[in-house]
Amino acid sequence: MSEVKVIEIHENVFKANDEAADRLRKNLTSKKVCMINVMSSPGSGKTTALSKLINMLKTELNVGVMDVDIKTSMDAQKVADATGVRSLQIHNGGLCHIDAEMTEKAIEQFGVDGLDLVFIENIGNLVCPAEFDTGAHKNIMFLSVPEGDDKPLKYPLMFSVCDLIIISKMDTKDFFDFDLEKATKNIRKLNKKATIIPISAKTGEGMEELAKWVKAEVKEISGRA
Amino acid sequence: MSEVKVIEIHENVFKANDEAADRLRKNLTSKKVCMINVMSSPGSGKTTALSKLINMLKTELNVGVMDVDIKTSMDAQKVADATGVRSLQIHNGGLCHIDAEMTEKAIEQFGVDGLDLVFIENIGNLVCPAEFDTGAHKNIMFLSVPEGDDKPLKYPLMFSVCDLIIISKMDTKDFFDFDLEKATKNIRKLNKKATIIPISAKTGEGMEELAKWVKAEVKEISGRA
Repeated sequence: MSEVKVIEIHENVFKANDEAADRLRKNLTSKKVCMINVMSSPGSGKTTALSKLINMLKTELNVGVMDVDIKTSMDAQKVADATGVRSLQIHNGGLCHIDAEMTEKAIEQFGVDGLDLVFIENIGNLVCPAEFDTGAHKNIMFLSVPEGDDKPLKYPLMFSVCDLIIISKMDTKDFFDFDLEKATKNIRKLNKKATIIPISAKTGEGMEELAKWVKAEVKEISGRA
Repeated sequence: MSEVKVIEIHENVFKANDEAADRLRKNLTSKKVCMINVMSSPGSGKTTALSKLINMLKTELNVGVMDVDIKTSMDAQKVADATGVRSLQIHNGGLCHIDAEMTEKAIEQFGVDGLDLVFIENIGNLVCPAEFDTGAHKNIMFLSVPEGDDKPLKYPLMFSVCDLIIISKMDTKDFFDFDLEKATKNIRKLNKKATIIPISAKTGEGMEELAKWVKAEVKEISGRA
């Protein structure tokens, strides 16, 4: 296998990316804007849950959303329609992730003055986005019940780099062989510190706890409660 | 965005990969072994459905399975336990796809003499695996009902390169806002030729049709019915 060659290329890419990410993070911190990078598989329910979450937060916080997609603008449109907050669709030209340089340029175009919180909804992929620090203050992910409780073991880097792991679509748990205790154990093998919140955007389960977590993170950066 | 630079690098990678893929495909054809590359999101149900399918095929065909995973051997073990056919787990060292050179080396190690059909169960990812021809004769994918009927528009390359698109977990369709007609329309915008088969590994829906499709492809290569 040509593994060594690939890893060497990756190391250079990652080093440059880490520098860009640190620069962006410092810049956002100085502006008191908290950025949260949201990752998951395709179809985990992140657009729907984010829309509901933003509606819970928007009376207290100024929120913006940047949606990453290969080609369509469906997600940015959905969030804008559901919440009325400012959203930007980033087309990443077929790539499997978004890196810090792309995020930095998107942030420049988006303009964050006056915002307390910006979500980046990353491309649906459990592998590549985990490798690229976007410059966000926090990384969060959705694991949806239909995907199965074994996914942490299969996509270990993603579950390792996240500060918050949301178990979504909990209203469907009776339909699938999903064991929340087993999922939690699998996550803990990789990540001792991450907060784990089971939610259902449909029934509202866990949404208050999620909003509370996000508000605490925003307070850390912006000083706003 | 540094898009142009990325595309240039990709072009060289893809050219070398296409050559390796053609070489592997010719080699397999000369041995009368049909290889089918199976792709999907994480948690689409491909391991479970493949196991059931192999149990339907194994009385008539000699089948082998190569499972690609970042780190675990769970999938190869599951298929081996459920079917008794020979399986190999490929650990791809954290990469987001498998390319033709990696597949070629895996095939050498696996040994395909006497086999009529080899499945490669690719890594769960709707972006990167679509970019790399593995050398397989046919590309097939699973789109599971919980992921949503809009996914073809969001991951267009994957839906364009597949010869067969399996809509899986059809038994859960009443639980989700999944419109099969809409999914089919979305697929047809990208891919006029692909066969579309809705299945449920749980209820058995569509499994006979799927087995028939696979047997016809094997016959093309191996001459065996």
